[in-house]
Amino acid sequence: MNSPEAREEAVLEAVRQRRELVNEAIPEALPIQRPERLYKASRYLLDAGGKRLRPTILLTTAEALADVEPLSQGYREFPTLDGSAGDASGEPRAPATIDAMAAAVSVEVIQSFTLIHDDIMDDDDLRRGVPAVHREYDLETAILAGDTLYSKAFEIMLETGADPDRAVDALEILATTCTKICEGQALDVDFEQRDDVTPEEYLEMVEQKTAVLYAASASLPAILQGADEETIDALYGYGLDIGRAFQIHDDVLDLTVPSEELGKQRGSDLVENKQTLITVHARDQGLEIEDLIDTEDVETVTESEIDDAVAELERVGSITYANERARELVDQGKDRLEVLPDNEARDLLCDIADYLIERGY
Amino acid sequence: MNSPEAREEAVLEAVRQRRELVNEAIPEALPIQRPERLYKASRYLLDAGGKRLRPTILLTTAEALADVEPLSQGYREFPTLDGSAGDASGEPRAPATIDAMAAAVSVEVIQSFTLIHDDIMDDDDLRRGVPAVHREYDLETAILAGDTLYSKAFEIMLETGADPDRAVDALEILATTCTKICEGQALDVDFEQRDDVTPEEYLEMVEQKTAVLYAASASLPAILQGADEETIDALYGYGLDIGRAFQIHDDVLDLTVPSEELGKQRGSDLVENKQTLITVHARDQGLEIEDLIDTEDVETVTESEIDDAVAELERVGSITYANERARELVDQGKDRLEVLPDNEARDLLCDIADYLIERGY
Repeated sequence: MNSPEAREEAVLEAVRQRRELVNEAIPEALPIQRPERLYKASRYLLDAGGKRLRPTILLTTAEALADVEPLSQGYREFPTLDGSAGDASGEPRAPATIDAMAAAVSVEVIQSFTLIHDDIMDDDDLRRGVPAVHREYDLETAILAGDTLYSKAFEIMLETGADPDRAVDALEILATTCTKICEGQALDVDFEQRDDVTPEEYLEMVEQKTAVLYAASASLPAILQGADEETIDALYGYGLDIGRAFQIHDDVLDLTVPSEELGKQRGSDLVENKQTLITVHARDQGLEIEDLIDTEDVETVTESEIDDAVAELERVGSITYANERARELVDQGKDRLEVLPDNEARDLLCDIADYLIERGY
Repeated sequence: MNSPEAREEAVLEAVRQRRELVNEAIPEALPIQRPERLYKASRYLLDAGGKRLRPTILLTTAEALADVEPLSQGYREFPTLDGSAGDASGEPRAPATIDAMAAAVSVEVIQSFTLIHDDIMDDDDLRRGVPAVHREYDLETAILAGDTLYSKAFEIMLETGADPDRAVDALEILATTCTKICEGQALDVDFEQRDDVTPEEYLEMVEQKTAVLYAASASLPAILQGADEETIDALYGYGLDIGRAFQIHDDVLDLTVPSEELGKQRGSDLVENKQTLITVHARDQGLEIEDLIDTEDVETVTESEIDDAVAELERVGSITYANERARELVDQGKDRLEVLPDNEARDLLCDIADYLIERGY
């Protein structure tokens, strides 16, 4: 087992290498065409950056399944698990290669669509260090840009060249994933009106709002390459586990990382009374969450107010609880990878899982 | 050839009969489930009514292709064009039936999604006689309800039970249709800033914003039932033609039908400076469209102001021009139906085309 530092270094390098390829593929899949303003708005957030974690997971899973050396294959003609094996008539059962990059771009496009619409719903001004799309453009254009990315993601997923049976399954995963993301976002909004959300309910919401897209990313290559049901299910489970862990760790970071590193006010979730696994647990322990911080505005809250609140959350064990749940989920997710051949790409998927809860921002 | 009155009566009866079946199928495809508020908002506009013209066209096209008596088959197990014919190995080439109703509901769900988001973009208060979704609920819920219907439409289209090759083609039509609707809406918004839109540009916008969903409705059964390319293309063309004619006739009705019958102020397009084929043509004839009506508010405009404006538009031939273009498009669309077997359902598709430009509201 590598040290956390070496592991993080390896993950960041792997992500960087694949991000470059994804960043080349995005404009090919989504050229700026007429009407130009619409397509510029659709591309705006995609071009503003992003780690491309989900495409990296998708491409690395494809490599682990095909049992090939990471980055040794062009993702555009990526081996399926059929090779050139044919059926009784000698016809190949399925294409020997698929365009795995198309699937990776499709998933990133869905992520971008949800961010654009979420920013409208939360009335957030900034995203990835630039104005949100509805601020840079306007509400109408932002709604329409999100809607365009939505259907484009389906069009792009149709470009993998996979066997039609598998293409249908891939599109079904994509559609149900989008439905669940909407349901998760609706639950999140509902929860703002409630003060009795349980940790289980919170984790269910996170599963739908965030983790399903990780699950889709990890299982889509298995579907498109023709893996068996057990493998598809295990990879879907891996994605659900690490996706939930990712969100829990995000909630911890909001409380523990200095504002300058975080790029926003530390403790903003607490100030804005946003529910997290930490606050939901603390309320279960009898803590009056609403009284933790009197200030209601992130502009005027002081560091010492936040320090005191974090100390209270630590005292009742809520931060430890969140860290432990995230660790459990990551370990469970890694165990599921046993269905994959033992290779470098599988090790990388394990390291990515660890990275998601060890990263400092 | 039947009289226009007899034709209209026959079309309305055919639409009514299919609407009842579509109205039963919608709650089955979109049950109110958790989170309930989200699904209630998603169903709100679908439950508020609507003629179900697009599903009617889809179901009737399926009947014409299969050469069966209208309403003689359950739409849930509707014959494909393969029958039980098998390939050399004796295996059926494709399923003998499909769920045509699933495709019909999918198209109506897409229509509903676009209405919800359009009403936000246009800040319209009313739709189908009830408050728009963002008024009855709120902006966040309306965006999310539209997004949910979007992915649900793909999920529902995956339920037709069609051969995977055909299912993939159907999903591709659905995705590209949604992209074009977004592009058309963006063009419509762009046109509001311009005073040099040509009739051809206007018709291109209408094709994308409105007609492509008619084209999808008419061609989807051909794709799912396994018709040849020529038939698919002809039916797509029929939909594009009658969809454009439908919109042109809508623009004429806005000027010519008394407000009480129209359910809104007659001439509201003119008052709000909305471009239509009529105004675009009139500007080409040298008319100063902006000067036609001084009042900028539909609440205060008088009937005589609108009468004078309509008289001017008639004088330069713009209303006649619009009526002629709509008639040409309908005749062209009807000619394309020659690819279908000569049967009652095909006659009904012709009558529907005529009805779209003969209807009084």
